[in-house]
Amino acid sequence: MAEALRVVGRPVPRLDGFEKVTGRARYTVDLVVPGMAHGAILRSPVPRARILAIDASRAERMPGVVAVLTAADLRDIDPYYGQLVRDRPLIAIDEVRYAGEPVAAVAALDPATAQEALERIEVAYDELPPVLDLDAALAGGAPRVHARRPAGAPPEAEGNICFHARVARGDPEAALAGAAHTFEHTFVFPMVYHYAMEPHAVVAAADGPAVTVWTSAQHPFLVRADLARMFGRALEQVRVVVPYVGGGFGSKSYTKLEPLAVALARKAGRPVRVALSVAEACLTTRRHAARVVLRTGVDRDGRLVARVATSWLDTGAYADNGPRVTARAARRVLGGYRCPHVRSDAYAVYTNTVPAGSFRAIGAPQTIWACEVQMDLIAQALGLDPVEFRARNLGRRGEALLDGERPLDADLEAGLRRVAAAIGWGHPASPRTGRGLAVGITDAGAEPVASAIVRLHADGSASVHESSTELGQGVRTVLAQIAAEALALPVERVGVVASDTAGTPYDRSTGASRSTTVMGLAVQAACQEVRAQLAEAAAAALGAGAASLCFEAGRIRAPDGREIAYGDAVRAFFGGPGGELIGRGYVRGGGRWAPPPLFWEVGWGGAEVAVDDETGQVRVARYASLADVGIAVNPPLAEGQDEGAAMMGLGHTLFEALRYEAGQLQNGNLVDYRVPLADDLPALETGLVEDHNGPGAHGVKGMGEGAINPVAPAVTTALARACGVVVTELPLTPERVWRALRRARAQQAVSAG
Amino acid sequence: MAEALRVVGRPVPRLDGFEKVTGRARYTVDLVVPGMAHGAILRSPVPRARILAIDASRAERMPGVVAVLTAADLRDIDPYYGQLVRDRPLIAIDEVRYAGEPVAAVAALDPATAQEALERIEVAYDELPPVLDLDAALAGGAPRVHARRPAGAPPEAEGNICFHARVARGDPEAALAGAAHTFEHTFVFPMVYHYAMEPHAVVAAADGPAVTVWTSAQHPFLVRADLARMFGRALEQVRVVVPYVGGGFGSKSYTKLEPLAVALARKAGRPVRVALSVAEACLTTRRHAARVVLRTGVDRDGRLVARVATSWLDTGAYADNGPRVTARAARRVLGGYRCPHVRSDAYAVYTNTVPAGSFRAIGAPQTIWACEVQMDLIAQALGLDPVEFRARNLGRRGEALLDGERPLDADLEAGLRRVAAAIGWGHPASPRTGRGLAVGITDAGAEPVASAIVRLHADGSASVHESSTELGQGVRTVLAQIAAEALALPVERVGVVASDTAGTPYDRSTGASRSTTVMGLAVQAACQEVRAQLAEAAAAALGAGAASLCFEAGRIRAPDGREIAYGDAVRAFFGGPGGELIGRGYVRGGGRWAPPPLFWEVGWGGAEVAVDDETGQVRVARYASLADVGIAVNPPLAEGQDEGAAMMGLGHTLFEALRYEAGQLQNGNLVDYRVPLADDLPALETGLVEDHNGPGAHGVKGMGEGAINPVAPAVTTALARACGVVVTELPLTPERVWRALRRARAQQAVSAG
Repeated sequence: MAEALRVVGRPVPRLDGFEKVTGRARYTVDLVVPGMAHGAILRSPVPRARILAIDASRAERMPGVVAVLTAADLRDIDPYYGQLVRDRPLIAIDEVRYAGEPVAAVAALDPATAQEALERIEVAYDELPPVLDLDAALAGGAPRVHARRPAGAPPEAEGNICFHARVARGDPEAALAGAAHTFEHTFVFPMVYHYAMEPHAVVAAADGPAVTVWTSAQHPFLVRADLARMFGRALEQVRVVVPYVGGGFGSKSYTKLEPLAVALARKAGRPVRVALSVAEACLTTRRHAARVVLRTGVDRDGRLVARVATSWLDTGAYADNGPRVTARAARRVLGGYRCPHVRSDAYAVYTNTVPAGSFRAIGAPQTIWACEVQMDLIAQALGLDPVEFRARNLGRRGEALLDGERPLDADLEAGLRRVAAAIGWGHPASPRTGRGLAVGITDAGAEPVASAIVRLHADGSASVHESSTELGQGVRTVLAQIAAEALALPVERVGVVASDTAGTPYDRSTGASRSTTVMGLAVQAACQEVRAQLAEAAAAALGAGAASLCFEAGRIRAPDGREIAYGDAVRAFFGGPGGELIGRGYVRGGGRWAPPPLFWEVGWGGAEVAVDDETGQVRVARYASLADVGIAVNPPLAEGQDEGAAMMGLGHTLFEALRYEAGQLQNGNLVDYRVPLADDLPALETGLVEDHNGPGAHGVKGMGEGAINPVAPAVTTALARACGVVVTELPLTPERVWRALRRARAQQAVSAG
Repeated sequence: MAEALRVVGRPVPRLDGFEKVTGRARYTVDLVVPGMAHGAILRSPVPRARILAIDASRAERMPGVVAVLTAADLRDIDPYYGQLVRDRPLIAIDEVRYAGEPVAAVAALDPATAQEALERIEVAYDELPPVLDLDAALAGGAPRVHARRPAGAPPEAEGNICFHARVARGDPEAALAGAAHTFEHTFVFPMVYHYAMEPHAVVAAADGPAVTVWTSAQHPFLVRADLARMFGRALEQVRVVVPYVGGGFGSKSYTKLEPLAVALARKAGRPVRVALSVAEACLTTRRHAARVVLRTGVDRDGRLVARVATSWLDTGAYADNGPRVTARAARRVLGGYRCPHVRSDAYAVYTNTVPAGSFRAIGAPQTIWACEVQMDLIAQALGLDPVEFRARNLGRRGEALLDGERPLDADLEAGLRRVAAAIGWGHPASPRTGRGLAVGITDAGAEPVASAIVRLHADGSASVHESSTELGQGVRTVLAQIAAEALALPVERVGVVASDTAGTPYDRSTGASRSTTVMGLAVQAACQEVRAQLAEAAAAALGAGAASLCFEAGRIRAPDGREIAYGDAVRAFFGGPGGELIGRGYVRGGGRWAPPPLFWEVGWGGAEVAVDDETGQVRVARYASLADVGIAVNPPLAEGQDEGAAMMGLGHTLFEALRYEAGQLQNGNLVDYRVPLADDLPALETGLVEDHNGPGAHGVKGMGEGAINPVAPAVTTALARACGVVVTELPLTPERVWRALRRARAQQAVSAG
């Protein structure tokens, strides 16, 4: 029985709408901090080299140059950072590990001077042979990207292995040996870039005990922790302010540009702005390219009996969040299928390329693509309908697929049949078209540590203080709705304060689809604290029992019909003209969050694809996306998130790949790097499953990442059905498809001949 | 028995010291808000006139001009504001009431254009006869400064009376009639200006639903309330940010320039900075000039039996905080003396001059001067030693001087004898020198509504969120000390967040000596909440009872000797790598605050003065100041406050007066307006009485205003003793003293002849 909800579940307008549509929203790059200088970064022209010497004297002498930062300035701090493995210096120390790595930075009175000064810095490099891809990195005798073991590196790290994760159960090799059918396939997934509209930008001030950064960061409190550790400050001395962020998708997660900006500002003795160009942002982070090998055994009844997965993820020159991506990949490659014997190994592998980090649904698009395409290939080989084959193997609601895991909370089969119906599965398709389906399931969420403060003002309006980053996903609107519901206020009376570690309390991060679920609970708890205080104040004012009061639309009614407005109750409580009631909400580990994951994020996809035999061009004509959201707090925002994720999936499926030649990124710009355009969009249908069974407020669970995962397998298998050719490397560019078609025809000709 | 204190009572360095001594501290005028335009204000050239027409078209056509604001733009808002009496429009409507009143305002792309545009605004005035001083305003048939009754005007307001306050007890007229001795004196106190180093400045943004102002405001939440009411916003939609403030002294209390800046920014459709020049700041606020008539009856034993006081305070063209100043004057004129029959009437009187508002120890310097000088005159007339005469009449500790008042919490006589001893009272003085003494006592504090949030971070450092304005008094340092004491942390581990209504919780105001006392309790309560949570977390981690734990220097020790650092306890509580514990503290009316006032602020002063008969120049050779502070949380800061107040008192005593001619302020600048210079300072001795009996944390009570009050009476009576002439009008300029000496000599000559 669902609660009667007044605000949650309604399509309320975005809180950030007015500012964004009128161009008033301010992003980091818009800020002006008094006395601010402008930074520019000198980047390595080569993928691997020893730095023999840096002569910055000509640059330093230039009029208007305030400071030049090199590794020589880092001796009194800890210059290294990284998630789990702290291998990345804020600026290259002794060695460069990818073309584009920062080697020096300039602060000048204006941007043009800073750029010009870069040209006057002379760096002597001793070039070294680079490792540029997984094969080179894993080859015997390969040069090591990190010759010394970085801080935090796990014991199993050797050679160019940065991190290894394993998920195991039973005896998969024995089970494979005994299986009725065994299959092995290899899948290759490209390097892709997030392409958030806003490149990374930071303004840093560090000319005293306090360090302040304004930054386009998804995880301000993790940035704060890194800066405090690196620069020897207390957490209370470091302030991280996050203005509006123009898209993240993981590219602005964890710590990126901030330490460099702080070190430069520290040397400059004044605030410094460092704002990357699009080309520089492409040299800052990316998604992990991957190779996934799947060996799967199936019994006579078409049931999975064993699966051995090996995933290699190209993490580039530095670990960044690679270890966590790798751990997630190891689990995510197994999908939502019941299988008694499994072993999944995933490896993060160093190469001399741009460091790879978080990207929407970390580790999932690569591995779910592999898993789901192989499921189709197995069904085809066994002569089974892919829907029925999947249905036979999908875990049931309430079933734990691995020991110690949260039971599944979604009906995977029902969702699959729903997207199948949506794209006309089983009905005849036009010539040269085909249909494909996929189920994406991810162990979602990150550490569930969050806090919120809610203030009820003396006019009955409320402010929510919480540190989720508003990066376009609409988190402020959704949290305002949860607060308004909990406070029994119209949503127009609730504001959400912008993230600022000196004004909004701790949140672990904005990512992993966690904010609505995790932070929503913190906000709800804070509102409940306010409401309890309000009830006491109103009870005293109305002479009624607190438990007997009815809250509605900013007013409190006693059983005898007398009423008091919230603001009047606040003022009565304080006995003065003002005051405010303050509530605090915590979310912490354990409790509802055990066993892991925090929740399952499930997205189903179905595609109808047409292929042009002459050109190899693939067109997705229809796409149906279905997401299990628990409850859609704001249905249009949920649908928008889902559609955005699906269309982002179309990018790596059909178009996107970062291209390297001799260690140099070739297409780090929006002309040469092809993202989906409006013309590429299919007829799109988005559905939301609302079972009110998530761990968040009102049964919500996270969403916004799940829809990216089924796209590639649905399209790949649809393409296979359209033209009979299975392509196991993405993206499905016309050239690749055309070559595959030509190869298939040649083979047919050979076998026909 | 005093507590064992570790941080409170120590001379810890100021938290704002580094930023201020290195020039890094940012004031409102330093801010740059992206897209910001620059405002300038057209001011009335005449003291009173009807505005017949304003033609702004030539200004509006100027390249670079963004907007011109006139009264015509105010039709959709409530343009009036003011404390209690809302009589002041944010820009003149139909009529100007003082020379210097804003009539129009320009926003332009640069300040020079804005200034130039002012000259192209044509205003047609119909001049009206002004009332320029108390006599003119109170004369029969005087023109009315406000022809219509403003919103909130009290019923007794008629003619040019803005507000009337009365304190009464017994039957003073009958008692006067029956008194052995009666005395009547009239005292005249000048208009003076605060001369904070920073003139008023505001940056306002109001181009959407949100209104943001950065402002040099002492009372950000009262400004927020005014802006919300005037511009039809919810409180949560209005954000008031207060950077460092370069001195206030009341000049930046309540709402000043903010509504004009918001209205201008609203019309401009972009942020606008309005930064006043010193000359403009002098046209914005000032202290009330006053005339005080005291009739006092004394019995045969030298005990006061009756006192009738009438105080007229020139509140200028608008009420501002005049009503509250007037109410305080009515009480404060009575001093700390026991008197069975009293009536004190105080009137705020409108004139066509700059509006008067709050100024350090509102209503007190004028009235305490009168009261204390008269006490000396009575003692002289009765042949009593002024110390003994006062001692006979001063209230005793624990005695309530008026019905329903808080009993006195200081030993007034002891303090008086202490300053007497300090200046050598009773010992022979040099020729042409004299000594004088005074007791100042004020009913201090403003509404005790305040709140604080304290956050304990995962490294054991803490942030205090509270909204006291740091205007040089050192409030952040003192509150950090109170927090460090309550949290058992070194003070270096505690930061205090800058005031921002969107980041720091409600405080009624920074003034009336209330912050250390009132906000200190809120901060302490918030710390206690954090500490209770910390105890629970540590108890769970250490397996010990929460009540058994010992907190010291950021560590918690169990009885068995095991320890945990605060940060570790926080992380254990959250079960993750971060998190923070949040405590909330409220202070509200009633309870310890009843009966009023919140506390008595007592300052004693003793002066030794030399006079030059030839020039009339008065030099204060020695000055002893004594303040009852309960406890000095930071002794050097307390002494600095006390010395600053005493030296400010020297200003209105010897030098300062705003001079008008024909309604035009003549000396609104630091060349013509004489403040005390370093050469003017006496040998200064400051003492602090620490009885630990205030209502604040550790027994603190407010200070920093009390020392201004005894200066004028101590110096005036010292001067009288030096040269035999009592001057009852301030300031004691050489000319005034010389004329008084000449008059006295002439009278002596006449009487001798």
